[in-house]
Parts: sequence; structure tokens; C-alpha cells
Amino acid sequence: MGAWISGFTDGEGCFTISVIRNSTTRFGKQIFPEFVITQGAKSLTALEEIKSFFGCGSIVLNKRYDNHNEYLYRYCVRSISELQNKIIPFFDEFPLKTYKHNDFELFKKVVLMMSRKEHLEERGWNKILELASKTNRKKIRS
Amino acid sequence: MGAWISGFTDGEGCFTISVIRNSTTRFGKQIFPEFVITQGAKSLTALEEIKSFFGCGSIVLNKRYDNHNEYLYRYCVRSISELQNKIIPFFDEFPLKTYKHNDFELFKKVVLMMSRKEHLEERGWNKILELASKTNRKKIRS
Repeated sequence: MGAWISGFTDGEGCFTISVIRNSTTRFGKQIFPEFVITQGAKSLTALEEIKSFFGCGSIVLNKRYDNHNEYLYRYCVRSISELQNKIIPFFDEFPLKTYKHNDFELFKKVVLMMSRKEHLEERGWNKILELASKTNRKKIRS
Repeated sequence: MGAWISGFTDGEGCFTISVIRNSTTRFGKQIFPEFVITQGAKSLTALEEIKSFFGCGSIVLNKRYDNHNEYLYRYCVRSISELQNKIIPFFDEFPLKTYKHNDFELFKKVVLMMSRKEHLEERGWNKILELASKTNRKKIRS
């Protein structure tokens, strides 16, 4: 199952680092790392197997239709501690083989820094923004 | 590597059965099964690893650009004997977990029938067209 998940993530997975406006935080924005795999409704069981394998995360219905007119589901893990303790060690053990490997390495650095609360200080915050800007599929909503 | 390829195929692979106009054939058309995995240029090495693993097929540059303005590459296997002897036994051993499993089962039936030359007789031809119509991503160019 492990190597299959690694291959499936190389195909359908995404390590995103979003920066979202949030006026309650020190820098007026919030950094938001997320591991996501999206599938159409026909393959929901594959997402359920993955969720069960990792023992964390959630599956969220995305009500947009894709080209095949079916609902989309997103398996996503957002908790820093679950990313740090479950998702990252997994992809260290079963490495990605596509360009997503680079995204993963950047993602890993950001999650590690956040677990050390480095994003609460200006130096760490700027470093994380720099790392996020290098990922292939970052989403900036600011 | 096997389970990774299975997962990657669940994400990025495709079992297509095309029906192409060809006036030199008995029924004026040609059935054309193909196993394909498409990737952007950044992940060409992953396709090269897959080609090397299977020991068959070819990688073809597709000059369209995708959303990321990079070339696309297609790893494809078209030979009936290679599909029958390498690709199909592989996915029997490392089963797909998404809806593509259904496409694979239909694809397998078609390849097996073609290996027995059943597409050269009307009954087999019609049966194959029926199976092809049930696949999720068939391409009909006629």
C-alpha cells in the first residue's frame, strides 16, 4: 500500500503552502500548509483507503463538477503535528519520483519550521514565504 | 517500483481503446488499444524509469504546452503482444485501486480478443466495439 500511495501522490497529490490574509495574526497573514489528494466520486474508495492508511486527515466534498460531471472529493491533512509525524515520515520512506519530490522537500522544511514556531518571528516568517514561493503549485490568496 | 507504478497509473495513466478510420481494413476502421502515461517535461525521468521497468513502449514528445508552459511527454505501449505479455500481467499483479480498474478490465478483454484475432470476424468486432464504448476515456475518431 505504501508504494502505491507514493505513486498515486506523484500523480494526483499536492503539497501546497497557502498564504491567507488573517488580520488577527502578527504579520496579517497566515501560512497554511496542506497535503491534498483530489479524486472524482467514482474513486472515493481509494481516498478512503488512504485516509485509513494514514489514520489522519479528512475527506471533503468539493461541489464543483469536473469534466466528467461528477463530484470531486479532497483528502486533506492540515494539522502541523500530523503532517510532521505521519505524512512527512511516510514520504521520506516512500520517496516521490516526479518533480513533486521538490515540492515535498520545500513543504517539509516549512512544516518543520512551523512545528518549531519559527513562523512567529520575522526571520522565520520571511524564510517560509521564500520557501513557499519556490513550490510548483503554491496558492497565494492575500 | 511495481506498487509505485500502479499508484502512478491510477493517477496519471490511461487505458484507451480508440477506433480509427482505416479504409484498408475489413470493417473500414481499426481498433487501437493503447496504455499511456502523460507527464510534463519536469517529470520525464519518471517516465524513463517506467519504460525501463517494463522494457517496452516508447516515450513521445507531445508539442502542446500544458498550463505550466512545459512540453508534455507520453509513455505509450501499443503492441498487442507487449500489452498482453507485459502490461496486463503487471496490473493483474499490482491492481489499480481507482475507477481505472474497470477500464483496465475492459482493456484486458479487448487485448485478449485481438491477440486471438477475434476482431477480424464480425462477431468479435462488434463485441470489441461494445467493450470499448464502456471505457471511461475512450477516444472515438471515426
